[in-house]
Amino acid sequence: MKKMAQIKLEKNILEANEDIAGKLKEQFKKNKIKVINMISSPGSGKTTILEHSLPKIVQKFNVAVIEGDILTSRDADRIAKLNVPAVQIETGGSCHLDARMVGKALEKLDLSRLDLIIIENVGNLVCPASFDLGEDAKVVVVSIAEGSDKPAKYPEIFNRAKACILNKMDLLPYSNFSRDEFYKDIKHVNPELKVFEVSALKETGLDGWLEWLEGLMADGGQEN
Amino acid sequence: MKKMAQIKLEKNILEANEDIAGKLKEQFKKNKIKVINMISSPGSGKTTILEHSLPKIVQKFNVAVIEGDILTSRDADRIAKLNVPAVQIETGGSCHLDARMVGKALEKLDLSRLDLIIIENVGNLVCPASFDLGEDAKVVVVSIAEGSDKPAKYPEIFNRAKACILNKMDLLPYSNFSRDEFYKDIKHVNPELKVFEVSALKETGLDGWLEWLEGLMADGGQEN
Repeated sequence: MKKMAQIKLEKNILEANEDIAGKLKEQFKKNKIKVINMISSPGSGKTTILEHSLPKIVQKFNVAVIEGDILTSRDADRIAKLNVPAVQIETGGSCHLDARMVGKALEKLDLSRLDLIIIENVGNLVCPASFDLGEDAKVVVVSIAEGSDKPAKYPEIFNRAKACILNKMDLLPYSNFSRDEFYKDIKHVNPELKVFEVSALKETGLDGWLEWLEGLMADGGQEN
Repeated sequence: MKKMAQIKLEKNILEANEDIAGKLKEQFKKNKIKVINMISSPGSGKTTILEHSLPKIVQKFNVAVIEGDILTSRDADRIAKLNVPAVQIETGGSCHLDARMVGKALEKLDLSRLDLIIIENVGNLVCPASFDLGEDAKVVVVSIAEGSDKPAKYPEIFNRAKACILNKMDLLPYSNFSRDEFYKDIKHVNPELKVFEVSALKETGLDGWLEWLEGLMADGGQEN
């Protein structure tokens, strides 16, 4: 019985989240803001990717970043150094952001001035996949060092994402990462997924993902 | 009110887990079995560490492995190839193992024959830290590629662990990992934590962790 109750409660939590996410979507649409939800394991390089992408993004769009972390504000501090508005959400132990947390963070931003909000979720490939934050697209980031079996082992996030940044390509010669396995599993889990091979540290391969982002910005329809 | 109810329920879930974990502890003690709970981000190398450690462990102890995964049985298949009993738990979406799942997995093992059970938790640095599985020690695994800020960003698991395997040391020359930052934060979060620098892929540095494991096996007291 306890198990049934827990499953029901999880369903209720997700449904309550969907309701709030729906309201966020309306708010984003009204303000003509596109929203990206970046999801990855801890340490796959989301913040470093943003550090090297934002200087190019700000040339075309008014952007703000929402940083989700369990405890520290380190990532938000790194983004704020780029003179990009950054709001920190400390989840206080929760392993994912939810729509209510994002709603509260929005109170600190002037939405009328923004074109794009990038949400950097808590480092976790599992739960963040299930919580809609009202975004236009989820972007999954995975690093070469994590191994080529991630799409098969964590299919939900690869299935729900519209783009994937395969980061730390500079480590490819020193790893046993199999591109064949990776792309074969991606094809199985989500054949539509756009994959961009990047080394944020070496600043290579960022153009593809930035072009994709521009395409999303130009796309009039709100979808998820 | 909803938030209060959710927090209360999370507390109830954790308390219910503690009850079951307490019973597991009794079962382990009765059978003189030591238990390790390995926790890390996805792709930090837990399974590869086990692949290179188990051939040495089996020379001294009767060991079994419990593999937690969201969906696939890939890791259990890799362990079974070493002729070590491996039980797969597919969590079906849950981002962590709980004591009830481990209890069910134990039904598939002959406890009277075992000295050691190694549990490889779901790849996630957050929630697995909070769920006691009746283990003698949590071992946190983190890879060089994940960056040196992990102890500061995910302090709970570094605080609760007794040992840390810093894996993929072979990538150190190609990364911006700062040993200074890493060890400074470890000292702050958990000065007692034993850290072992390892490259599972290159099979270097495994001796220290294996000696630590032998020490744990020799230790008569059940503690957590």
